[in-house]
Amino acid sequence: MSETLTLSKDLINRPSVTPEDAGCQQMMMQYLEALDFNNEIMNFEDTSNFWSLRQGKTEGPVFVFAGHTDVVPAGPLENWHTPPFKATEKEGYLYGRGASDMKSSLAAMLVATKRFVKDYPEHNGSIGFLITSDEEGPFINGTVRVIEELMKRNQPLDYCVVGEPSSSEQFGDVIKNGRRGSLTGFLTIKGTQGHVAYPHLADNAIHKSLKALDELAHTEWDQGNEFFPATSFQIAIIKAGTAGNVIPGEKYVEFNFRYSTETTHQELQQKVTALLDKYNLEYDLTWKLNGEPFLTDHGHLLTAARNAIRAVCQINTAPLTTGGTSDGRFIAKTGAEIVEIGPVNKTIHQINECVKIEDLDKLTEVYYQILVELLATPKTL
Amino acid sequence: MSETLTLSKDLINRPSVTPEDAGCQQMMMQYLEALDFNNEIMNFEDTSNFWSLRQGKTEGPVFVFAGHTDVVPAGPLENWHTPPFKATEKEGYLYGRGASDMKSSLAAMLVATKRFVKDYPEHNGSIGFLITSDEEGPFINGTVRVIEELMKRNQPLDYCVVGEPSSSEQFGDVIKNGRRGSLTGFLTIKGTQGHVAYPHLADNAIHKSLKALDELAHTEWDQGNEFFPATSFQIAIIKAGTAGNVIPGEKYVEFNFRYSTETTHQELQQKVTALLDKYNLEYDLTWKLNGEPFLTDHGHLLTAARNAIRAVCQINTAPLTTGGTSDGRFIAKTGAEIVEIGPVNKTIHQINECVKIEDLDKLTEVYYQILVELLATPKTL
Repeated sequence: MSETLTLSKDLINRPSVTPEDAGCQQMMMQYLEALDFNNEIMNFEDTSNFWSLRQGKTEGPVFVFAGHTDVVPAGPLENWHTPPFKATEKEGYLYGRGASDMKSSLAAMLVATKRFVKDYPEHNGSIGFLITSDEEGPFINGTVRVIEELMKRNQPLDYCVVGEPSSSEQFGDVIKNGRRGSLTGFLTIKGTQGHVAYPHLADNAIHKSLKALDELAHTEWDQGNEFFPATSFQIAIIKAGTAGNVIPGEKYVEFNFRYSTETTHQELQQKVTALLDKYNLEYDLTWKLNGEPFLTDHGHLLTAARNAIRAVCQINTAPLTTGGTSDGRFIAKTGAEIVEIGPVNKTIHQINECVKIEDLDKLTEVYYQILVELLATPKTL
Repeated sequence: MSETLTLSKDLINRPSVTPEDAGCQQMMMQYLEALDFNNEIMNFEDTSNFWSLRQGKTEGPVFVFAGHTDVVPAGPLENWHTPPFKATEKEGYLYGRGASDMKSSLAAMLVATKRFVKDYPEHNGSIGFLITSDEEGPFINGTVRVIEELMKRNQPLDYCVVGEPSSSEQFGDVIKNGRRGSLTGFLTIKGTQGHVAYPHLADNAIHKSLKALDELAHTEWDQGNEFFPATSFQIAIIKAGTAGNVIPGEKYVEFNFRYSTETTHQELQQKVTALLDKYNLEYDLTWKLNGEPFLTDHGHLLTAARNAIRAVCQINTAPLTTGGTSDGRFIAKTGAEIVEIGPVNKTIHQINECVKIEDLDKLTEVYYQILVELLATPKTL
């Protein structure tokens, strides 16, 4: 059995639902300690994190593997064909919660690193691991806090591979070289409450806001670019009114932007405010910036990732920025080049989550070749 | 003390919050029995109602006083200056829950009738009382059921004075000679749910309905007429969305028409459906007809009411159809001419509800003069 498969099973068997870690990080740290890594536990509140570094022999870039040991809940057990927290091989797939998001990536990182330091014990630069247990949760005490701490220390980060399951149909077809920004607006539109029988004494908060919301919903914010789809605006929640005979005096609207690097959250906020003002609306509006967009559109890491996938999978990978947010947005603050590379994401967060077993060794090989391209010294055999 | 004041106090002291009657109707029936009325208790479920009739000596029109003994709840007792269910005179006003809506009207009806049958014991036609205890409630087991029963018996109704507090600034300035119809629509607009990060896979139920709702909100349905303001459309409740990162697949909208006699509920329903279809929306739509509009735009009763108010108050009353619904809509089904005449409505349903004491005798006199104009035989003194 391949070591990546063995380690994947070990991790899946630990029921580490956010923010629980269930011993996953302990196992990883022991593994890394044996490879001369220096482990540092960086827990915050209910969240387990660690930061681990192996210095090479010579000055050079800092390469980091980033990932999370936590998984989303299993959901109704009776719908699983196999127990979610007992890794099970079946017809060429490994089943279990976290199989693709992202315990097999963690296993592949460990095995690739072991091979690499065995082959290149005197590699350039350093190799780091930044592992958290709250990526699937509120992302308050995980990567964001560790990055804060590392930046305080002026710890450089040059390249970062995040183990998120990036592949779409087959392993390696897609890597994520950035993510859109996410900005949420909480809007309350004010009118004047009244009885439906006396509309002239009231000012319906629903009616007065319809034109403005329609314009927001149909505005073209940008056209995206080579790496980003066009910025999108979606109203997620809308709420007004208390009773069938009362004209509502307030309307609550919650909306979300997923935005490209063609705009900024400041610009979007400004445009929304200008549009609401154009309609002479009275309103309260607050914002939450969930994550700024980031992009690695060129550089050594992206080249290394492309080369490795071409060599291992015989396909040209597509760097995309679609999909939800990831912890990459927090790591981006350091200025590091970031790429997300992981298995096929078709079953993530679903019942009967699984990963193709033959992809485990491919993923390990891709990680290994990236390390070689970025940090190898001449092989000493 | 005037008898109307005494009876008003007696009724206010009975805490008859819907559907409780607290003995009000028993008192009224005893009073009417002494005037040779034939009482008939017509209770349905939790609701007390009675129908009472006094036949005159000769054939002639049937005149009915209609009203309700129930009142809305007192609300927070600590905000009342006087106990809500203890009628209290203070600076020319009578305070208590039901003082203006509509226990003083009931008292005035009784006293006016007593005087009238004393003065004209051999009057034409007949005098009826239709009294319920659920006007302020769900109006299911009150006037609507009694009217059903009377129509089944082919009991004719020619004129009806409803004791609702119709006056605006001073007693007699406004009477209601009709009411708008009320029609409620319950609309669910369908889209396709999805994640905000993947808008191309979803179809936002909020976005797709904004234009149609805006057109509904700004449609001119009619221009009203001499007696009715223009038909009005109000969205009362709107609701969609469950979480900030989910594109809602459904949107709920509850709206209400208050409509004039220039349109019908069928026509309004048709127009709404056509408009929604024009925008290619997928939706569920159900309707509730709360009441059809009715109007008494001429006739003996309206003339008698105008004359009586001119004689008693020295003002020309304004017949209006504004405001909420009343039990008049149910009585209108009989084809009777209907006018609502009652005290000033400024404090109805409020803390410290009150009525001007000097208006009690004026109201009694107005009711008396209407009876005289419509049913009197030559005075037999």
